[in-house]
Amino acid sequence: MTSLDTTTPDLDRLLSPRSIAMVGASNNLNSIGGLVFANLKRSFTGTLYPIHPKDADVQGSRAYASLHDMPQTVDLVVIAVASHAVEGIMEQAASKGVGGVVLLSSGFAEAGAEGIALQQRVADMAKAAGIRVIGPNCIGYLNIGGGVMANFALTPDEPLPPGGGVALVSQSGGFGSYLTTKGLLTGLRLGWFVSTGNELDVNIAGVLRYLVERPEVRVLLAFSETLRDPHVFIAAARRAHALDKPMVILKAGRSEAAAKAAMSHTASVVGAVDVFDAVCRQYGVIVASSMEEMLDLGMIFQDGRRARGNRLAIMTTSGGAGVLLADEAGMSGLAVPTFPENEQANMLNVLHTPFFGSVANPVDTTAAVRPDAIGMLQNLIADSPSVDMITSVTWARATGAAEELAAFYQRIDKPLAVLSTDLVEQLKQAGVPTYTDPQRVAKSLAALYRHSTRLPLSAPSTLQLDSTRAERARRHLQLPTGEHVLMEAQGKRLFAEYGIPLTREEWVHSEDEAVAAAQRIGGKVVLKVMSYQLPHKSDVGAIRLGLQGDAVVREGYREMLAEVGQRAPHATLDGVLVQQMVPARMELTCGLQRDPVFGPMVAVGLGGVLVEQLAETALLRPPFDRETARSALAQLLQGRLIQGRRGLSDQEQDQVAAIMIGVGNLALELEEVVEVDVNPIRVDAGLAFAADALVVLASTSSTDH
Amino acid sequence: MTSLDTTTPDLDRLLSPRSIAMVGASNNLNSIGGLVFANLKRSFTGTLYPIHPKDADVQGSRAYASLHDMPQTVDLVVIAVASHAVEGIMEQAASKGVGGVVLLSSGFAEAGAEGIALQQRVADMAKAAGIRVIGPNCIGYLNIGGGVMANFALTPDEPLPPGGGVALVSQSGGFGSYLTTKGLLTGLRLGWFVSTGNELDVNIAGVLRYLVERPEVRVLLAFSETLRDPHVFIAAARRAHALDKPMVILKAGRSEAAAKAAMSHTASVVGAVDVFDAVCRQYGVIVASSMEEMLDLGMIFQDGRRARGNRLAIMTTSGGAGVLLADEAGMSGLAVPTFPENEQANMLNVLHTPFFGSVANPVDTTAAVRPDAIGMLQNLIADSPSVDMITSVTWARATGAAEELAAFYQRIDKPLAVLSTDLVEQLKQAGVPTYTDPQRVAKSLAALYRHSTRLPLSAPSTLQLDSTRAERARRHLQLPTGEHVLMEAQGKRLFAEYGIPLTREEWVHSEDEAVAAAQRIGGKVVLKVMSYQLPHKSDVGAIRLGLQGDAVVREGYREMLAEVGQRAPHATLDGVLVQQMVPARMELTCGLQRDPVFGPMVAVGLGGVLVEQLAETALLRPPFDRETARSALAQLLQGRLIQGRRGLSDQEQDQVAAIMIGVGNLALELEEVVEVDVNPIRVDAGLAFAADALVVLASTSSTDH
Repeated sequence: MTSLDTTTPDLDRLLSPRSIAMVGASNNLNSIGGLVFANLKRSFTGTLYPIHPKDADVQGSRAYASLHDMPQTVDLVVIAVASHAVEGIMEQAASKGVGGVVLLSSGFAEAGAEGIALQQRVADMAKAAGIRVIGPNCIGYLNIGGGVMANFALTPDEPLPPGGGVALVSQSGGFGSYLTTKGLLTGLRLGWFVSTGNELDVNIAGVLRYLVERPEVRVLLAFSETLRDPHVFIAAARRAHALDKPMVILKAGRSEAAAKAAMSHTASVVGAVDVFDAVCRQYGVIVASSMEEMLDLGMIFQDGRRARGNRLAIMTTSGGAGVLLADEAGMSGLAVPTFPENEQANMLNVLHTPFFGSVANPVDTTAAVRPDAIGMLQNLIADSPSVDMITSVTWARATGAAEELAAFYQRIDKPLAVLSTDLVEQLKQAGVPTYTDPQRVAKSLAALYRHSTRLPLSAPSTLQLDSTRAERARRHLQLPTGEHVLMEAQGKRLFAEYGIPLTREEWVHSEDEAVAAAQRIGGKVVLKVMSYQLPHKSDVGAIRLGLQGDAVVREGYREMLAEVGQRAPHATLDGVLVQQMVPARMELTCGLQRDPVFGPMVAVGLGGVLVEQLAETALLRPPFDRETARSALAQLLQGRLIQGRRGLSDQEQDQVAAIMIGVGNLALELEEVVEVDVNPIRVDAGLAFAADALVVLASTSSTDH
Repeated sequence: MTSLDTTTPDLDRLLSPRSIAMVGASNNLNSIGGLVFANLKRSFTGTLYPIHPKDADVQGSRAYASLHDMPQTVDLVVIAVASHAVEGIMEQAASKGVGGVVLLSSGFAEAGAEGIALQQRVADMAKAAGIRVIGPNCIGYLNIGGGVMANFALTPDEPLPPGGGVALVSQSGGFGSYLTTKGLLTGLRLGWFVSTGNELDVNIAGVLRYLVERPEVRVLLAFSETLRDPHVFIAAARRAHALDKPMVILKAGRSEAAAKAAMSHTASVVGAVDVFDAVCRQYGVIVASSMEEMLDLGMIFQDGRRARGNRLAIMTTSGGAGVLLADEAGMSGLAVPTFPENEQANMLNVLHTPFFGSVANPVDTTAAVRPDAIGMLQNLIADSPSVDMITSVTWARATGAAEELAAFYQRIDKPLAVLSTDLVEQLKQAGVPTYTDPQRVAKSLAALYRHSTRLPLSAPSTLQLDSTRAERARRHLQLPTGEHVLMEAQGKRLFAEYGIPLTREEWVHSEDEAVAAAQRIGGKVVLKVMSYQLPHKSDVGAIRLGLQGDAVVREGYREMLAEVGQRAPHATLDGVLVQQMVPARMELTCGLQRDPVFGPMVAVGLGGVLVEQLAETALLRPPFDRETARSALAQLLQGRLIQGRRGLSDQEQDQVAAIMIGVGNLALELEEVVEVDVNPIRVDAGLAFAADALVVLASTSSTDH
């Protein structure tokens, strides 16, 4: 598992082969075997063997009756035959020492119980033989740099993609083909496309982990329905972040209906989408909110240009378009600064008079501008120290303007994005990121800005698992048979091992001890009855608030025990927790949930009376450092939790971070803890304390619930 | 003002003319005068006179030297000459009894002080002569049904738009032309486009008010930078709602940067965007969040089809596309119900075996489906009682499938939207709403569903202004010279006139009176010192909370006055408010702001300690009824304010609504009240009370602030 985290999977023979055989290669160009072989034939310059049981040649190449009959082995075998024949072919591939298989056939896990069994047998054979497999139920892959069109995403009559820095990965073959087609139509420089299908062996995470290391890849796009190997996904994300290769993911199964559909057609579990989003955020992966947004981001990142800041220059001949672009820029977090007077003066110099436009920014030249003035203006803006990025408005029918824009793009270093009424061939040829909507221009440039100015991720692990600490902590988890929820006092002692700030408190077993404890603690105190049977203390009067002074504490203690005796006569009591009563300007909560895909996740959110109404939570995957914990707090209430007069101070944020880190470490070291809830965390005056503790252990018996 | 609200502006001679003259008509097809006249000539079947000072004919039509020389008058004069010549032409138009003018010329308000003065003079002339004017600084309009291409939004070499149910209005000419071009490219059935430019006379609101009554118009789209005549806009919105014609608006100037740009190029004030959004919501206008969204909505509404419910059928050959569509549908509020077993059985009957797809919904036929089965499946889904709307996935290169889809669309009544890799000519010709992104499909269908099932707006006015009440209320506004902030006790009396629920309270002027008042009120009370100088009571100790019992009230009264005497020795005190202390499970706020465009707006939001952090507010324009007030509460916290165990109960919502309605009526009847703040409203146990009152009057003297 650790080796998978840090090393690139060895997929070279599978994805960058020097020799290929295709079983199911056909002379029938209407069959998948015919289409894929034609694609291979037009693209691949290495050794290529069609395998055909009867035909002597396939599409002009000499064919062999089986893999056994090939004159030498190959790196890759592409298989496009009926599923029942696949096991036999895999046996041959194994005996020939083949490195990889692209299994296009369907009729596996997506086709019921028999298919599932067949898929498992093929997986076992591949593993035993050391063959890496893509598929089944996929449409293959394309690797333009390597000349491998092992796919039917595109048909042989469509032009070969020009190649480039964009790598696209999709589980779904049909939709991957859709994305490829649409991407190429809109000018995406696609160098790689891999469909993973049923993921018998290689999955999206592994492909991303492989592709991120490829020098020609500049941006990674992925369409994912289910995510296997989350640690490989995270390793890929870390490498992408370190190598300055943005990773953009479009996740299906966000709604209930879609999760249902995804489960039905991929036969696999769909993880919780909020956990997925949180993990992506934590490791710097961009989650696209729509299909077009994913492709839009591919386009803005494909040229590798970066922005030094968020200052955008807008060039337009229409005031309205300029206003709308400025709008969208502002709402996406970009600035549209007014050019300084000297720069404005230089711009006015190249414009005609009278001039009814504006050179403030947006630079609105109006439709009356002289064509030669546009070029001079463009150069002034490209050289301006006042802006970091440029957008320009054009019309699809203005082909002359498009040619000038293309030339402008190629002579400058600053990022440029164009707004056009439609896609324009000249801009597409030149690789200019072009969009048909102001919002898409602004969102793409804003993503570029955020990526360009991203901060380093924290080191892969900030935590050394501490077995001594875990051993100490486990002393607090020894519960009587049948119990699996700690009493608060036990939970607090567990928390103390993990450095979670606690209110001062003592666990006492008599009235006199309670009075003495209250004296030592000082100020107002809270009394709480401890009992495995009373997790909801206030329901039975097992709590007293705001007591101060010996007599009051003594009286409160007596009254409380009397009330509990009456309202919960069968509960076995185990003393009383005497607790410092701390002020709270604000209440937060911190909890642990265990996600089936990503494992332990620490949730931090708002507490208090509106907690249900607010439903505000940020999630982090442990381990994480203080800065990461603080950045999660900064997400709450659109950043307003830590702003303003009543927002959390620096000190308070650090204290809450300590609670979050403690809960995370606890979760990593003590796998038997299934749930933790710190509610409330009381925050005021630079401090934050865990004022309650709910800790639930895995049930030891199946009848226990 | 009232007549504008309820009657259609008489723009027939301007926008639906039977005769047209054009001043500035030219034989030079590179000039605006040449372009526009060519457009008129190719479209208009009525009388058309080019006016030219020298040429005997223009583009083959006999020309006249001036408007005076025309053989008869005309409904419409189009003017495309330099701004300095416009006054003379307007004089001629007036003397000829012309009905409308389209003023294309620039050099008016957008061009500085002289231009502003010129624009005002022309406006005065037009008003005096009863001539309705569009422009100046606009690109004219098109009315396909009426054959009027009085514009240079399109050039004469571009095909004439086919016409249809979509009407588009834009202040910005350049951007309007952009929208027109892009709309036509994407298949929008544009029957009307009007650019209003500087809005010397006719503005966006007036054009919308006119167009909404046109029988051929089915959906209204508007791009607005500034909004004049808000009451006309609201009247248009009401009519649109009543006539089942969706109105979609794209508002520029949403961000600070854009507001700046809009002010610079239109020389007018940009209103507050949150007020604009709230007014649109209140009167059923859809606010588009991007340019493409506006056009997307135009497309889904142009055929006039409506949905009976939100149940969507998804037809796809790619599982991944189906999942993503289901996702987007779910997130947009649509349902993707599983087809009942009998319907699934019928579908399976027409499919091949073995079938690895799904007929549950999404209906994933897989790529292996027989073409003839698709048509049968389509019919089954069109006839299904289980779904209200249909979406289907296609590929731009599959022209055969597009033809079948087009035929399918035309033989069914249910709304259909298509997801395609690119736009397809066959679908465009047939008017099929086609989108290139799953999110855009889902958002468009969801908007159609919401519009189809919208509830009636409340009656135009639920309030009869009550002059007797206003007179009574004004007694509480009599303040000493120099004061313009009411003391809380005064504010509460004002509130009482407007039926705002108040805590029980008495305004007393002695200790004994306070004790007696506390007895009558019962329970715990609050004491507050009344003084014009002490609006912030807690800063100087002028408040005591939670007092009960004669001795405690007496002691609290004394202590409080002593403390205030010490901390605010110069304040003139005017007694003490003794107030019932009510419980509060939740605190809200309700306030009045006066918007420069829309007038009084009532804001309701969350109160309490997190108020700054939450920043949650809903706005309503008074007058409004209880249901409307409640729907504003339902917007807060994404609906969660009124949900769940701790959310507002029905009774509590009605109480808060009474406060909102009271504040709104107060604002309408008492124009001298510039600010009202009810903070907090304390809510619990089925009740809600205004527990404080801040009322600010307009300063009477300019030195007063």
